[in-house]
Amino acid sequence: MRYKEFTIEGRNAVTEAFRAGRTVDRLFLQEGCKDGPVMTILREAQKRNTPVKFVAKERLDRLCTTGKHQGVVACIAAYEYAEVGDILELARQKGEPPFMFLLDGIEDPHNLGAIIRTANLAGAHGVVIPKNRAVGLTAAVAKASAGALNYTPVARVTNLVKTMEALKREGLWFVCADMGGKRMYDLNLCGPIGLVIGNEGTGVSRLVRENCDMTAAIPMKGDIDSLNASVAAGVLAYEIVRQRLQGEAQA
Amino acid sequence: MRYKEFTIEGRNAVTEAFRAGRTVDRLFLQEGCKDGPVMTILREAQKRNTPVKFVAKERLDRLCTTGKHQGVVACIAAYEYAEVGDILELARQKGEPPFMFLLDGIEDPHNLGAIIRTANLAGAHGVVIPKNRAVGLTAAVAKASAGALNYTPVARVTNLVKTMEALKREGLWFVCADMGGKRMYDLNLCGPIGLVIGNEGTGVSRLVRENCDMTAAIPMKGDIDSLNASVAAGVLAYEIVRQRLQGEAQA
Repeated sequence: MRYKEFTIEGRNAVTEAFRAGRTVDRLFLQEGCKDGPVMTILREAQKRNTPVKFVAKERLDRLCTTGKHQGVVACIAAYEYAEVGDILELARQKGEPPFMFLLDGIEDPHNLGAIIRTANLAGAHGVVIPKNRAVGLTAAVAKASAGALNYTPVARVTNLVKTMEALKREGLWFVCADMGGKRMYDLNLCGPIGLVIGNEGTGVSRLVRENCDMTAAIPMKGDIDSLNASVAAGVLAYEIVRQRLQGEAQA
Repeated sequence: MRYKEFTIEGRNAVTEAFRAGRTVDRLFLQEGCKDGPVMTILREAQKRNTPVKFVAKERLDRLCTTGKHQGVVACIAAYEYAEVGDILELARQKGEPPFMFLLDGIEDPHNLGAIIRTANLAGAHGVVIPKNRAVGLTAAVAKASAGALNYTPVARVTNLVKTMEALKREGLWFVCADMGGKRMYDLNLCGPIGLVIGNEGTGVSRLVRENCDMTAAIPMKGDIDSLNASVAAGVLAYEIVRQRLQGEAQA
């Protein structure tokens, strides 16, 4: 796993990483470790809303490449995160209605990478991911994005619903993919839009779905339940592209 | 790697697998091994057009789970292959114009699985893959297909161009994805159709492309070159679905 290249291990190293302002995707601490240096690291993590997980020593041993974790392993983002404001600013600069992807808990790095790649090519201005229960910008994601991570800003937020509420005040509409929805061709997907894609297994979470303005269904003729998350994101994104191009042609 | 669960190792075991009619995806033989039993296995492989690779002992050691390969390792399909005729028959049974995917060298098992999943849900009647330079129906592919492999027939052919020529006589048109093509919205993708998807890195090979009737371009607004292969397959497949639904609504 190339992911391991981006762990920082040991108490001093992790403390320094926090002090240097590096973005820690996830902090792993050994269960039962509660001495001074570990508590200092924990406080730094809490200040920055870094997700913290207490795990058994064996788990840390497996995460660790140097063999010397001293009860502390930090997973570092391979790329720097943007702010949601940067995504809106990019749309403004291009003179286009904002178009962004919101990913409600994508766990597979291949899927996240493929979705960032799609966002780039579909002309979206950025991607928003949550801090918890989701994969961050690891090396595997960067690879699967085929370079798109260098162009498409990815913002990471603590609470997806609060971010949606703030973006609604900026004029965005939200559409999520769900089987119970209206056929995507019959929705108006022009204008400032946020496309919400759910978790690979459990789909869009209840609160996020309730905050969406529209639910779009991809027509399904087959025997199984759902498309791969990155394929569904691609199909929906390109329905938005089609409607936008049609709108431009008519204008 | 779960792939390893589907290797058969050792001379007797591999000979028996061939005699029992099991589909060997790929046969690995140790370089320099030319004694009687190995030559028998090689003849069996050639009779069935099984791709054979001569590799160093170290490579076999790595492929092998039992530690006793005796210079012979066979990779077995996790699922049984269909024939191209089965795919046409399925279309006939459903009373629909044939719609199939032809994959020109997909190497990533996640991509192949996701594409079979998409083929199922887009209402395609089957998927055609080549024997060489492509991943077969391994356990990883079955997992990524999310069960679609149980419903959507996958045929494996020696020569994709010859298969296309035969299918043209059955009335199929072929469209491939390529940046130089016409915008997909401006093509007529109704009727009996084969959707050709190229390799992840090198795209559609020259001979296959020359045998396509149409080249479809997905509109690209971004900074990078191309979508992930399974996402591109999904976007194009759903443009076919959209045009077919529109055709039905007008009829």
